[in-house]
Amino acid sequence: MKTPIVCVTRQLHFSSAHRLFNQAFSAGKNSEIFGKCNNENGHGHNYTIEVTVRGPVDPETGYVIDLKVLKSVVDELIVDDCDHKHLNFDVPWLTGIIPTAENLVVAFWNRLQPKIIQGKLHAIRLYETERNFVDYFGE
Amino acid sequence: MKTPIVCVTRQLHFSSAHRLFNQAFSAGKNSEIFGKCNNENGHGHNYTIEVTVRGPVDPETGYVIDLKVLKSVVDELIVDDCDHKHLNFDVPWLTGIIPTAENLVVAFWNRLQPKIIQGKLHAIRLYETERNFVDYFGE
Amino acid sequence: MKTPIVCVTRQLHFSSAHRLFNQAFSAGKNSEIFGKCNNENGHGHNYTIEVTVRGPVDPETGYVIDLKVLKSVVDELIVDDCDHKHLNFDVPWLTGIIPTAENLVVAFWNRLQPKIIQGKLHAIRLYETERNFVDYFGE
Amino acid sequence: MKTPIVCVTRQLHFSSAHRLFNQAFSAGKNSEIFGKCNNENGHGHNYTIEVTVRGPVDPETGYVIDLKVLKSVVDELIVDDCDHKHLNFDVPWLTGIIPTAENLVVAFWNRLQPKIIQGKLHAIRLYETERNFVDYFGE
Amino acid sequence: MKTPIVCVTRQLHFSSAHRLFNQAFSAGKNSEIFGKCNNENGHGHNYTIEVTVRGPVDPETGYVIDLKVLKSVVDELIVDDCDHKHLNFDVPWLTGIIPTAENLVVAFWNRLQPKIIQGKLHAIRLYETERNFVDYFGE
Amino acid sequence: MKTPIVCVTRQLHFSSAHRLFNQAFSAGKNSEIFGKCNNENGHGHNYTIEVTVRGPVDPETGYVIDLKVLKSVVDELIVDDCDHKHLNFDVPWLTGIIPTAENLVVAFWNRLQPKIIQGKLHAIRLYETERNFVDYFGE
Repeated sequence: MKTPIVCVTRQLHFSSAHRLFNQAFSAGKNSEIFGKCNNENGHGHNYTIEVTVRGPVDPETGYVIDLKVLKSVVDELIVDDCDHKHLNFDVPWLTGIIPTAENLVVAFWNRLQPKIIQGKLHAIRLYETERNFVDYFGE
Repeated sequence: MKTPIVCVTRQLHFSSAHRLFNQAFSAGKNSEIFGKCNNENGHGHNYTIEVTVRGPVDPETGYVIDLKVLKSVVDELIVDDCDHKHLNFDVPWLTGIIPTAENLVVAFWNRLQPKIIQGKLHAIRLYETERNFVDYFGE
Repeated sequence: MKTPIVCVTRQLHFSSAHRLFNQAFSAGKNSEIFGKCNNENGHGHNYTIEVTVRGPVDPETGYVIDLKVLKSVVDELIVDDCDHKHLNFDVPWLTGIIPTAENLVVAFWNRLQPKIIQGKLHAIRLYETERNFVDYFGE
Repeated sequence: MKTPIVCVTRQLHFSSAHRLFNQAFSAGKNSEIFGKCNNENGHGHNYTIEVTVRGPVDPETGYVIDLKVLKSVVDELIVDDCDHKHLNFDVPWLTGIIPTAENLVVAFWNRLQPKIIQGKLHAIRLYETERNFVDYFGE
Repeated sequence: MKTPIVCVTRQLHFSSAHRLFNQAFSAGKNSEIFGKCNNENGHGHNYTIEVTVRGPVDPETGYVIDLKVLKSVVDELIVDDCDHKHLNFDVPWLTGIIPTAENLVVAFWNRLQPKIIQGKLHAIRLYETERNFVDYFGE
Repeated sequence: MKTPIVCVTRQLHFSSAHRLFNQAFSAGKNSEIFGKCNNENGHGHNYTIEVTVRGPVDPETGYVIDLKVLKSVVDELIVDDCDHKHLNFDVPWLTGIIPTAENLVVAFWNRLQPKIIQGKLHAIRLYETERNFVDYFGE
């Protein structure tokens, strides 16, 4: 019997401040493009991140990857650095990035992807609010 | 470095009445096929719609498409017409359609798709209730 | 040791159409007071009802009231009559009532209260949407 | 028949940055008391606010208070001022307040209470996250 | 100005097995009273517990009680003992209790109440599922 | 006009106990691999299952498959057997399977797939908790 290929997902949370702002733009253009997200003192969100790993189910354990292990990798590489921080100022590996959900999800992928060695990183979904979210598949 | 391709999603809500009914069927067949959804005076739902656009992240803005813009397009083309309406009677562009979730999601796609010009419309998910939902990818 | 007094709650769902309309008002006044809720063909919601019974915990069963029993009472008296119906036309015991959430919750209380004989009916919460809900305590 | 007394609730959302910090404390004491909430550049949340008004149901409208009216009052007095803002710097009527959920909910009450003239303001619940929330009843 | 009195709530989660069973009952009576909850090998739930403390807001910190402290008390006294355990066999302080939601919430109250010394324990809500929950106020 | 291809999903719930344990492993290795999920008396979850069927929309009914029919198939083949049961002992067709979410979702697929004859079974998502879930596409 062939080994089934399953996607497993772990959801985590962090709360951060951010400001949408491109220093190459004038104040007027920043305001026009980013609207209320451009507020000088920033605003913030409860972010929800869902990390999906795809791979064969190990017949001895019934796991693709132990979700406790996946959680601890995401905590160490992402949540511990971003939680209760200002994403424009406090996270060295986000320096120079406009912290839109799109740019964040790509930065998270680039940071996590090399460290997922049981199965392969398949997708990351990032919720900025319940109503706004993004998905990245490494393309 | 290549430009990443990201999917961005906006969730919106509307509340409508509808009745499942095919005028080509007899009353008995309508009742048999549609069950309690065939109630003559209709029933209703809090619909949730999730519209997903896929495309490259603009390096200047960090956006695939500004989700405020996407929201306003969906509000104008769908929510304003359907919210607090009876889907069998009050929405001209749904005339002649049995308003199942399947038919609604296809009608929404056909209406939205030509108006999404930054990125491409990738998916629409429509929840009739938390327990029943449909996805359409334009196939 | 005294018998503890606990509140137990069961949540149920139903989907209905309704229209806010007072036949004593002119068309203009109905429109002014009820806005888009006055749409002639009605609209609808996925209602969520939470019924709370308060009473002593039976030491032999550990129950205030068996929640399966409470569920079946609410199904029989409320959900079976309201689900997939138009609340203005299809429910005899709602005749003559403007089906606002406030009036519905009071009607549900009056119908349920005499049938709860193990513990006492303590509260009913009715969600019209996630964002709009009402609570009634029999006052 | 007596007029029933019902509680009606409207839920709204806003996204803000904040920092917990008492300028009368040393840096060390601020860090000890507020922990990661004391991060110098702030962090943020998607706040959810639920405003409850209690009163008699108007027999002509079936409303305690029109929830669309309640929503517009809360939008005008609270959400428009707090959404996409930094609560320590951008909201004049929060100046000098440590923006804990407790202090915010009391400030919101004091601002809303005089403007609720149909029914009485009964409760405000403020969620900082799904896991942390506070309730205030004006006591 | 008087010190406001606020209720603060922390939500936590644990996953446990349980079986409803009264050893003073015959097998037939156990089956009749507890139905499918009486399954000999047990079943289980993702429990959600919400612990509410009521008290004055400390003017120096803006806290009733630091929710991080409240979380660690509930983790230590309840979650660490109940999570990933069988409530009929593995928790010494639940011995001899039929683990209905009602009996659990009272046992949790009795265990937590003496350890809440900043503010007073006001309420515990325990969700067995999203559809079934209980509230206890120490009565 | 071509017939659109839509995915329709029905969500259902069941509550079960389970224990992660490989009888080929020593007690020490079981404990090391499965951690607290290896608790001898088991633990449990409120599982949520989402079954997705993909196919053409029938022009006469507007359905891919009647979701009431899909629900009754999943109830009969999965929920009735697993709800309020211990997955290691009480479900004949799970005998010999370590009941991880990965193995469960594959077993559910193998059981459901031959019985879906209107449209094709496309995906099953199984939530063990809100934070841990798996997806299987029959690969």
